[in-house]
Amino acid sequence: MFISFEGIDGSGKSTQARVLAEALRAEGRDVVLTREPGGSPGAEEIRRLVLEGDPDRWSAETELLLFTAARRDHCERLIEPALAAGKIVICDRFADSTRMYQGLSRGNLRPQVDALHKMMIGREPDLTFLVDIDAETGLARAKGRQGPEERFEDFGLALQQKMRAGFLALAREFAPRFRVIDGARPPEAIAAEILAQTRAALA
Amino acid sequence: MFISFEGIDGSGKSTQARVLAEALRAEGRDVVLTREPGGSPGAEEIRRLVLEGDPDRWSAETELLLFTAARRDHCERLIEPALAAGKIVICDRFADSTRMYQGLSRGNLRPQVDALHKMMIGREPDLTFLVDIDAETGLARAKGRQGPEERFEDFGLALQQKMRAGFLALAREFAPRFRVIDGARPPEAIAAEILAQTRAALA
Ligand SMILES: Nc1ncnc2c1ncn2[C@@H]1O[C@H](COP(=O)(O)OP(=O)(O)OP(=O)(O)O)[C@@H](O)[C@H]1O
Ligand SMILES: Nc1ncnc2c1ncn2[C@@H]1O[C@H](COP(=O)(O)OP(=O)(O)OP(=O)(O)O)[C@@H](O)[C@H]1O
Ligand SMILES: [Mg+2]
Ligand SMILES: [Mg+2]
Repeated sequence: MFISFEGIDGSGKSTQARVLAEALRAEGRDVVLTREPGGSPGAEEIRRLVLEGDPDRWSAETELLLFTAARRDHCERLIEPALAAGKIVICDRFADSTRMYQGLSRGNLRPQVDALHKMMIGREPDLTFLVDIDAETGLARAKGRQGPEERFEDFGLALQQKMRAGFLALAREFAPRFRVIDGARPPEAIAAEILAQTRAALA
Repeated sequence: MFISFEGIDGSGKSTQARVLAEALRAEGRDVVLTREPGGSPGAEEIRRLVLEGDPDRWSAETELLLFTAARRDHCERLIEPALAAGKIVICDRFADSTRMYQGLSRGNLRPQVDALHKMMIGREPDLTFLVDIDAETGLARAKGRQGPEERFEDFGLALQQKMRAGFLALAREFAPRFRVIDGARPPEAIAAEILAQTRAALA
């Protein structure tokens, strides 16, 4: 079972991915919690190349190739072996984030995103939680964070609104695996819904 | 005019690329001498990721994505602007090296190499000098070098022979732009032939 968390900046993906991993481990399940970009040693090195430095350090196309390289490494070295061993893999962002950021926001590269995914990745999650939140709340929550990984920050409210609509459209495009979760509630309420949905999918 | 140099390790590519650049500059031409992987600041960072470390640090597929990312950056930031400004660009290795190393030797990835090139690069050289030399001589010459970029060294004589045959097959596949140059002669004789061929192509 491969579960991904998606959503705009500050929607609560990392929080909910962590809480779900803990809840499933408490039930005795073997869980691998990971994230993208990164997740394997090589992919984390690529992550640093992509997320640090000037906003115009890489074009959208180069960035797409680097993200796909990182995902390929992550899949080969961590995700596929864990799934083959029967573990539950929970990933904080996966290919849907590339469909949104490189495919929709940075460039109009969705055809290239899809062709690269088909050729070099192939894998889709069994279950994707879209933590949905309005753009203002997401931005306000995300602003709490600070660090060197700033290439994608500061893109403003209009972009966050476009991304939110894009993620909701993606949830319709890949309806069978998506679960849209209202992220405006307290973390415990969200976690309970996500755990129930996961148990239902595992049954 | 975009000129590339190709051939097996130690064949004399870097030597001849440098000598040709000097000869054309002495004639008053505006020449950009560059190399792959690398050639632009971002691509040189990717070069370090790819060429240093353990031989199994990256799979052939991840490596292909990283090389394509580096080439995309190199083309966008250096090669295309120089060609648009009417300069002569001389590149020590280009896409033919990827066709050989990722397409033939490391994996059987030629279809993926071609699809990625078509989608993300597009550009082919106007003129490609294949500096052709027997595998033994190439290996003996290359062994003089030492350094941290060792991931592709030590693959032995059999691989060098396969690569030499592969480059000659590529020269037939892309016959119009390829010039096969006998690299077993003194550097001055080789340089004179390459300069004459370049002048003919420029005329
Ligand atoms: N349901 C919630 N209600 C209020 N605050 C929350 C909620 N969930 C998370 N937060 C807080 O909002 C901030 C962002 O949460 P989190 O890091 O989980 O979001 P994210 O989607 O992973 O963000 P990013 O896209 O930037 O990685 C954190 O400070 C977190 O504690
Ligand atoms: N025609 C030649 N005759 C004898 N030695 C040569 C000749 N051309 C180059 N060399 C020597 O062979 C070695 C390899 O040459 P060079 O670095 O130009 O090859 P290369 O094809 O760029 O190798 P690599 O693939 O490893 O980058 C150098 O020491 C160089 O001085
Ligand atoms: Mg997060
Ligand atoms: Mg060289």
